Order: sequence, then structure tokens, then C-alpha cells
Amino acid sequence: MTKPPDARRRMVIGAADMIRRHGLAATSVRDLAKHAHAPLGSTYHYFPGGKQQLAAEAVRFAGDTVSRILTRELDAGPVAGLRAFLAVWRDTVLSTDFRAGCPVLAVAVEEPADGQRDAVDAAAEVFAAWEALLAEALRRHGAAESEAVRLATLTVAAVEGSVAMCRAKRDIRPLDDVAACLEALLSAAVTR
Amino acid sequence: MTKPPDARRRMVIGAADMIRRHGLAATSVRDLAKHAHAPLGSTYHYFPGGKQQLAAEAVRFAGDTVSRILTRELDAGPVAGLRAFLAVWRDTVLSTDFRAGCPVLAVAVEEPADGQRDAVDAAAEVFAAWEALLAEALRRHGAAESEAVRLATLTVAAVEGSVAMCRAKRDIRPLDDVAACLEALLSAAVTR
Repeated sequence: MTKPPDARRRMVIGAADMIRRHGLAATSVRDLAKHAHAPLGSTYHYFPGGKQQLAAEAVRFAGDTVSRILTRELDAGPVAGLRAFLAVWRDTVLSTDFRAGCPVLAVAVEEPADGQRDAVDAAAEVFAAWEALLAEALRRHGAAESEAVRLATLTVAAVEGSVAMCRAKRDIRPLDDVAACLEALLSAAVTR
Repeated sequence: MTKPPDARRRMVIGAADMIRRHGLAATSVRDLAKHAHAPLGSTYHYFPGGKQQLAAEAVRFAGDTVSRILTRELDAGPVAGLRAFLAVWRDTVLSTDFRAGCPVLAVAVEEPADGQRDAVDAAAEVFAAWEALLAEALRRHGAAESEAVRLATLTVAAVEGSVAMCRAKRDIRPLDDVAACLEALLSAAVTR
């Protein structure tokens, strides 16, 4: 009885994996079905909105996974949350030999040819959710309102950008350098 | 007599524009030829290495264009260079109504399905070139070696990441918030 939700979930997770590696345009619904060991017809059964619906759910799945980690770790303060956020991306990049990055960033840099914005709208929501979690923790630990918002945006932007740089260079240094800068900044913002 | 180089150059510029909007996978050689008003066969005449060669040249073209601006403006100091770098991306995003970003980032987040790394290797070179220019200016203006390198990487990563966030959100705020943070950081590094 649990097979339908499992198959559907498998497709969402598979889509997130393919998108974080190859981007959205390179990911076909046919490949996604194959990747999830599901018949092609079942993708349209589960996702009547087609590729855009599946991609939007994949982006939200990745976003929620990271948001849960952030929520849990930010409880111990902004720097603990930052470290957990960095660890997610460090592990993603290293465990795939620099072949995978962030599916949220991937859909954000592809203007939809047909004007369908489901996936890119989901990306905007995910970025905003991560920024809100970081900003709230910074405020809670003494950062001023405008500084909290700016540092949260800087953190998400710099980590996302550095993941792409790591992949291009096949070198983890960009992420580690960004990590050192951000840790110093967030520490200073909450101890001031 | 100048027609062949012009046609070739038009294709490289057109490829950079298509990649910064839609990414590499969504950009076909057929579309590129059409975009440059060139016969399909001429693309293979000018670019015997096919799409990867054309994409690599497009990435280098975009990289060199920004490097020239950086080189010129960094002469007046790291903050002046940063402002020029930010202005390039702010103008790109706003003048295209959030439909275009950075072609260098775009190719960096697409793992080549066929293992052809010409374009992504070009992206790695461009990121390194921008970082080197910024780091050199920071050193020249008094920043310590390790700080210069880290701040240069943070700058490129944060600006690249924020451009993607601006596109997803259709809002320039992420880039402007990152700009404020980076300007404060670079100013502090050179006046210390």
C-alpha cells in the first residue's frame, strides 16, 4: 500500500539529484523516470504539471532538507548553523567528486524558455527560507536588524557561489575560504 | 575582408548571451547559428570542436570583458574595482529584466554529460583570473596575503551567488545587500 508515495518520492529525490548535477534543461522527464526505475507514464500520473512541477518539488525537497538541518543547528547559535550549512555543501561537492552542487542554484540560472516559472519560483522561496532562518538566529543572538538580513543574504550568496567555483576548479578551497570569512563575520556580529 | 572574423565574433558573443540566459544544455548550436544570423555549417567551420569549443570561447570572452573592466578600475583601489564589478552584474540583471546572469556561473553548475570539460575549464580559469586581480589589488593596498586571497574569493563567490538569487526573486536586493557587506569588508582590509 505504500508503493505509490514511495515511487513518487523516489522521482522527486531523483530529480533533485539530476538537477544538482546537470541542470534543468539537461534533465528530461524520460531520464527522470529511468533514474527512478519508474515507467514514463507514471511521471505524468504523479506530476500532471510535467517537468516544471517535478522540478519545483525537487527544489522544495532540497530546500526543506537543508532548512531542517539549519533549524536544528541554529538552535546553538548562528555560527553552529553556518557550520552545518557549509558541511552540507562540502559533503555534496566532495562525495560526488565535484560533480554535484545545489539544485536550487541550478534552476535559478536557467531562464525558462517557455515562461514556466514553477521551478524558479520554488528556488526564490528556498533562498528566502534559508535567509530568514539565518537572519532570525542572528537577531536572536544580538545582531541589529539590517545587519542580520544582510549577513544572511551574504552567507547564502557566498556559499552558493563558492560551490559553483569548487565544481569548476575541482578544488574545495573556494568553499573553505568563504567559510573562514563568513565564520569571522557571523562571530563578530553576535559578540558585539 | 573583415567579414569572417566578424561572423566568428558574433557567434561567440551570441553564445555568451544565450548561455547567461538559458544555460549551456538549453543552448543548441542550431540556435546559436540562428541567433548570430549565420548558416549552421559555418559554426563547424569556425568551431571545429563544436559546442564545447564555442561555449569555452564564450566563457573566456565574458571573462576577458569583465577582467578588462576590473584591471582598469582596480587601479584606483580595491573598492573602486569592487564597485565596477558590481555595476557589471547589476546592469546585466536589470537591463534584461532579471532574465540574464553570468555565463561563467551557468557552465560551472552543469556537469558535462559527455565528460567534455572545455567550457567548465574555461570557467575555472575565469574565476581564477578575477580572484587574482582582486587579491593583487588588496595586497597592493595593504591587505595581508591570506586575507587578500580569501576576500577576493568571497567577493567573486558572493557576487555570483547573489546574481542567481536576484534572478530567482526578480529583485535586485540580494546583490545590493551583498554589495554593502563587501564594500565594508574591502574598505576595512585596506585601511587597517
